[in-house]
Amino acid sequence: MLNLHLNQTLLFCFQNLVFGQKIESPNKKLSLTFAMNADGEPTYRLNLGEKTVIRESRLGIELKDKPAFTKGFSIFKTDTITVNQTWKPIWGEVKEIRNNYKELAVTLQQNSLSDRKLLIRFRLFDDGLGFRYEFLEQKDFQYFIISDEKTEFNLTADHKTFWIPGDYDTNEYAYSTSKLSEIDALKGKSVQEIGTKSVIGANFVQTPLMLKTDENLYINIHEAALVNYPAMHLKVNQQNFSLSSQLTPDAVGNKAFLQAPCKSPWRTILASNKAADILTSKVILNLNEPSKIKDESWIKPQKMVGIWWDMHVNTATWNYADINNVQLGSIDWKAVKPSGKHGATTERTMKYIDFASKHGIDGVLVEGWNVGWEDWAGNWKEEVFDFVTPYPDFDVEKLQKYAASKNVKIVMHHETSGSVTNYERRMDEAFRFMKKYGYDAVKTGYVGRIIPRGEFHDGQWMVNHYVHVANKMAQNQIMLDAHEPVRPTGLHRTYPNWLACEAARGNEFNAWSSGNPPEHETILPFTRLVGGPMDYTPGIFQIKLDVYGKKEQVHTTLAKQLALYVTMYSPLQMAADLFENYEKKLDAFQFIKDVAVDWDDTKILEAEPGDYITIARQAKSKDEWYIGAITDENARISEFSLNFLKENAKYVATIYADAPDSHWEKNPMTYQIQSFLVDNKTALKLNLASSGGAAISIKPATADQLKTLKAYKKGK
Amino acid sequence: MLNLHLNQTLLFCFQNLVFGQKIESPNKKLSLTFAMNADGEPTYRLNLGEKTVIRESRLGIELKDKPAFTKGFSIFKTDTITVNQTWKPIWGEVKEIRNNYKELAVTLQQNSLSDRKLLIRFRLFDDGLGFRYEFLEQKDFQYFIISDEKTEFNLTADHKTFWIPGDYDTNEYAYSTSKLSEIDALKGKSVQEIGTKSVIGANFVQTPLMLKTDENLYINIHEAALVNYPAMHLKVNQQNFSLSSQLTPDAVGNKAFLQAPCKSPWRTILASNKAADILTSKVILNLNEPSKIKDESWIKPQKMVGIWWDMHVNTATWNYADINNVQLGSIDWKAVKPSGKHGATTERTMKYIDFASKHGIDGVLVEGWNVGWEDWAGNWKEEVFDFVTPYPDFDVEKLQKYAASKNVKIVMHHETSGSVTNYERRMDEAFRFMKKYGYDAVKTGYVGRIIPRGEFHDGQWMVNHYVHVANKMAQNQIMLDAHEPVRPTGLHRTYPNWLACEAARGNEFNAWSSGNPPEHETILPFTRLVGGPMDYTPGIFQIKLDVYGKKEQVHTTLAKQLALYVTMYSPLQMAADLFENYEKKLDAFQFIKDVAVDWDDTKILEAEPGDYITIARQAKSKDEWYIGAITDENARISEFSLNFLKENAKYVATIYADAPDSHWEKNPMTYQIQSFLVDNKTALKLNLASSGGAAISIKPATADQLKTLKAYKKGK
Repeated sequence: MLNLHLNQTLLFCFQNLVFGQKIESPNKKLSLTFAMNADGEPTYRLNLGEKTVIRESRLGIELKDKPAFTKGFSIFKTDTITVNQTWKPIWGEVKEIRNNYKELAVTLQQNSLSDRKLLIRFRLFDDGLGFRYEFLEQKDFQYFIISDEKTEFNLTADHKTFWIPGDYDTNEYAYSTSKLSEIDALKGKSVQEIGTKSVIGANFVQTPLMLKTDENLYINIHEAALVNYPAMHLKVNQQNFSLSSQLTPDAVGNKAFLQAPCKSPWRTILASNKAADILTSKVILNLNEPSKIKDESWIKPQKMVGIWWDMHVNTATWNYADINNVQLGSIDWKAVKPSGKHGATTERTMKYIDFASKHGIDGVLVEGWNVGWEDWAGNWKEEVFDFVTPYPDFDVEKLQKYAASKNVKIVMHHETSGSVTNYERRMDEAFRFMKKYGYDAVKTGYVGRIIPRGEFHDGQWMVNHYVHVANKMAQNQIMLDAHEPVRPTGLHRTYPNWLACEAARGNEFNAWSSGNPPEHETILPFTRLVGGPMDYTPGIFQIKLDVYGKKEQVHTTLAKQLALYVTMYSPLQMAADLFENYEKKLDAFQFIKDVAVDWDDTKILEAEPGDYITIARQAKSKDEWYIGAITDENARISEFSLNFLKENAKYVATIYADAPDSHWEKNPMTYQIQSFLVDNKTALKLNLASSGGAAISIKPATADQLKTLKAYKKGK
Repeated sequence: MLNLHLNQTLLFCFQNLVFGQKIESPNKKLSLTFAMNADGEPTYRLNLGEKTVIRESRLGIELKDKPAFTKGFSIFKTDTITVNQTWKPIWGEVKEIRNNYKELAVTLQQNSLSDRKLLIRFRLFDDGLGFRYEFLEQKDFQYFIISDEKTEFNLTADHKTFWIPGDYDTNEYAYSTSKLSEIDALKGKSVQEIGTKSVIGANFVQTPLMLKTDENLYINIHEAALVNYPAMHLKVNQQNFSLSSQLTPDAVGNKAFLQAPCKSPWRTILASNKAADILTSKVILNLNEPSKIKDESWIKPQKMVGIWWDMHVNTATWNYADINNVQLGSIDWKAVKPSGKHGATTERTMKYIDFASKHGIDGVLVEGWNVGWEDWAGNWKEEVFDFVTPYPDFDVEKLQKYAASKNVKIVMHHETSGSVTNYERRMDEAFRFMKKYGYDAVKTGYVGRIIPRGEFHDGQWMVNHYVHVANKMAQNQIMLDAHEPVRPTGLHRTYPNWLACEAARGNEFNAWSSGNPPEHETILPFTRLVGGPMDYTPGIFQIKLDVYGKKEQVHTTLAKQLALYVTMYSPLQMAADLFENYEKKLDAFQFIKDVAVDWDDTKILEAEPGDYITIARQAKSKDEWYIGAITDENARISEFSLNFLKENAKYVATIYADAPDSHWEKNPMTYQIQSFLVDNKTALKLNLASSGGAAISIKPATADQLKTLKAYKKGK
């Protein structure tokens, strides 16, 4: 059928030379118009019904030492097909994903360049558009260097924008909300706090970029399937509201070294009149390649606790000793005097193993277990860690035996300190070490400037590195959680062992910086998480902190920390606080124990970027639902129906809510927990404190509960 | 004793503040004077008896973002010790090496910089000087970046110089011979022929640099123990004949990232009134660290033949097919049509194995065995080879079994095409492959521009890579022969598995370029080989060539090709020609079969850089001697005594000499072979043709030979 359709289109194209073409999304709401302008420049427009999402915008690629793919084009042919299929992710927010789009493939030809061709492929979904450049193998065109990409996303007006500074090295900024014309990346929130940064300029921002028009149109711009190509940032023209692609350069100033046949990543534009549709869109996943992993049985969504927050709040350190000069292999660690503050000790790890085992937590992350932390950061040093030598007070063998006896997995930690040269040289040995001691998951880190020197976190060389690591770990049946990498683009579909990334400003910033403003977690799902799951490390119960003698705090209530396990999607969730803090509030910790990390269904009940999000998710293969509701600095009432529950069934909803007196700043650690009988007719009404939230578990009611529990009544 | 001596010196220094100090070499001939000038700049002078080798020259290091180690110094203390010991190399030119020097260690202090200290260590041998900078661990001085090294080698006059252009990426130039004032690196010999080059400028040259003064003083400037530091080139001041260090920069323009305590490589100056002393000097080996390899039993000096010259003379190709676009892993090679010209086939390899086995050659090198050669060079491409996938016509398993049955080893080939990123990512797998199939030696290659892009072959990142490879191969009991690396600095003492390097213009250039001028092989031992053994690939019998339809030729006679096995020292010697060419001249090939690759003793009988070299070497643990005599374009008579032979013993000398009508250009392939009885009273007189030579094997005479052979008579 498809083939036949395809052939007919071809026929049609040859009969009448096409100068432009319009396609509609399966539900006819989104429409794409492709056209050539007078200079033979390819352009596209995107409309949602009557509303213009993207006005006429040019497409093109500039090459080093070769004529550009920008103008002088004519259309050689256009092919259209319609695809409508479904597929099942190994893990995710829903059980099944529909991949339904209308495709337009335009083959362009530069007559003045002996008919050199370029293919631009558009895929138009009901909730968004993806397009990419495809470089065909052709005469005298094989190896080429991209010096610049000239993709435009021309907007219609001075939209409200949720942005962080365009930066080749980091994405750990707080979000600024402003009109496009008011963007100043050099004065963006928290810019001064970031150590390793390469801000591009005042008018550059990162993707995923979230916008909202005065007509209440929600737009998200990002990319999908970033492989063997540098990450795209966006240059903002503050006069005409045109955005254009800004690729991350390499050490010698080029953007990408490519070999035909090959393709660019997909450029994606999500658009809807409903904010919720941005959160449920599967466009980016659909544009990624299917899983490369045949046997996926070893890949397990999971929760972990660990030795980590201790260091952020300075109750322990990564380093073992108070020395300030480590040369790998030159130190007899047994002869070194320990500082007494080292976090990753055998004893403390065993306590975490006990806690995890007792409460059904799968993993225990241990950072600072291996030698080199005494002067690990900031020196642009090649040999920092060897990834196989534990400190004398960390007994790998004993701990692995103990963890196994308690049915808990220790999670490996590979901090590279940005010396990727060193990590790649030692990776095979590091993996052999993991296999020998039974580790099956690793948290990687890329803090600091990259070695090879001159490369950026977001450049082609590093993009190849991240994929190389995911691939090599897949071959070794190792699960990956990458911190400080380039922001995700849906590659977890292709490499499902790549469970999560940080690649944004995580909860940790609350411990030692201006922190994450109350709105932060209401923006992330509309920006960073559009690309993939985030290891945000929620679940901080001790919200008021004293770090290095400074008063710090997490900028949420405790109930909001619980709600994040639902609103901040990840198949790998950390319960980030010290286990001692959980033991003081086991009633609240019960939600973290119960909440699932893998889902059959997801409902966005309420959503407005920068203001609030309420999400309900059904646990994998269970008749259990979990709801998270969060708000920004403004207290609010969240009301929604439970009509997604099965008909004629009674459930017990346990509501972990802010207390009447809760306030993120004045009184963040109060909460109340109540259980009620509910059914699919129930409508809930929740009071969320300033930067507060609510977390709800919903499970089928037992006979006993039916007798003892009251039905939920509004206002209760 | 040493300690006592040391303490006395210390005492002495504290009593009288020293402003300068003179030390003499053990035999008192060389003298070094260290002094501070008026600006508090450290300086040194080197004299050989009455002759000045190096006039007052400054020493110093400039740092990035820190005050320089150049001026404002006072002497904190000086220590002197005398060392006289011997050590035995695992393999080499002599059985035992004497390490005898006077050391002066000067600790300098910058009073204006809170007494920041720098140590300069001099070691004065009878035949040369070595000195290095030592960066002490001290307050506020730990991590630092070297932006420039300010070491001067101020010469006394416009000496005759044997030089190649200073170049950060290659050393494969023909030598120019000129006055210092006449050096023009941009117009140096063969500059236009080199593909990947980074010539520094008109007045920059490489080390080892060979000079000769009008007073017939021979001077050689180089470095020893180049580790974690960039290679040093030399800037020539053509007015005052001052040379100064020019370090290879990294991708961001810095020279070296270091961490105290650490040291620079040794800067070396060899000096003698006899050219021969430059060739016998062990200064550079003595300045390197002892072997890091505990069990060295698996390290074996050896000879090899192989599938290699075939490709240089275009009778075969590295690539399997005539396609021009290979993407690793994307090609089903069995479905690809072979060109029919592929060299590394199972059949041809078996023929080489048969030949090697029959003639007692240890190894068979096979290049072009693995997929990727169709478009391997010149594209600055990251993924070129995977080092584990053979072409369909190369049966690894079958060949290894066959080679083992014939007691021959196949030598692995790892061409990186300069994509070191790719090699480092795949190295572990490549080594596992080698171990699985019984390879124990590998020839590596670094043709083309380096990836990580922006790095040079001679920069710190690559220097670390070469050492990393030697180290990792040692751990895997693999022997290394590196082509296109940085030039050697004696590291084969520390890593004796690192048998040889190319790192200069090898015999291969004779096949397809202007070639190597007749003087080339008389210069290399005074320059490139001062740093370590060279895989020059001698032994070309078919000297007149027809390559790509062009008439080419090797620029020597056949007898000179034989002599190179003695004059061009290497524990790894290739018999580089096609085995078919050897089978046509098995009488001459007998010398290649007989000649040793490891030695108990070495005598330089005659030597003048650029003109001629005659060397006699005693085979390891044998009463056998091998002599090689070569000359440049000028025919000459070589006369020397065999007084190094044992007393009262008769030997048979088999002389492989040029024929009366031999001439490198007009008639290069004629030769004559004669055997005579000789003893330690015999003086030989050999006629060397224009770019000719002679090779002689000397073995104890058998009773039978004593009867049948004539005694050698001059003029015969």
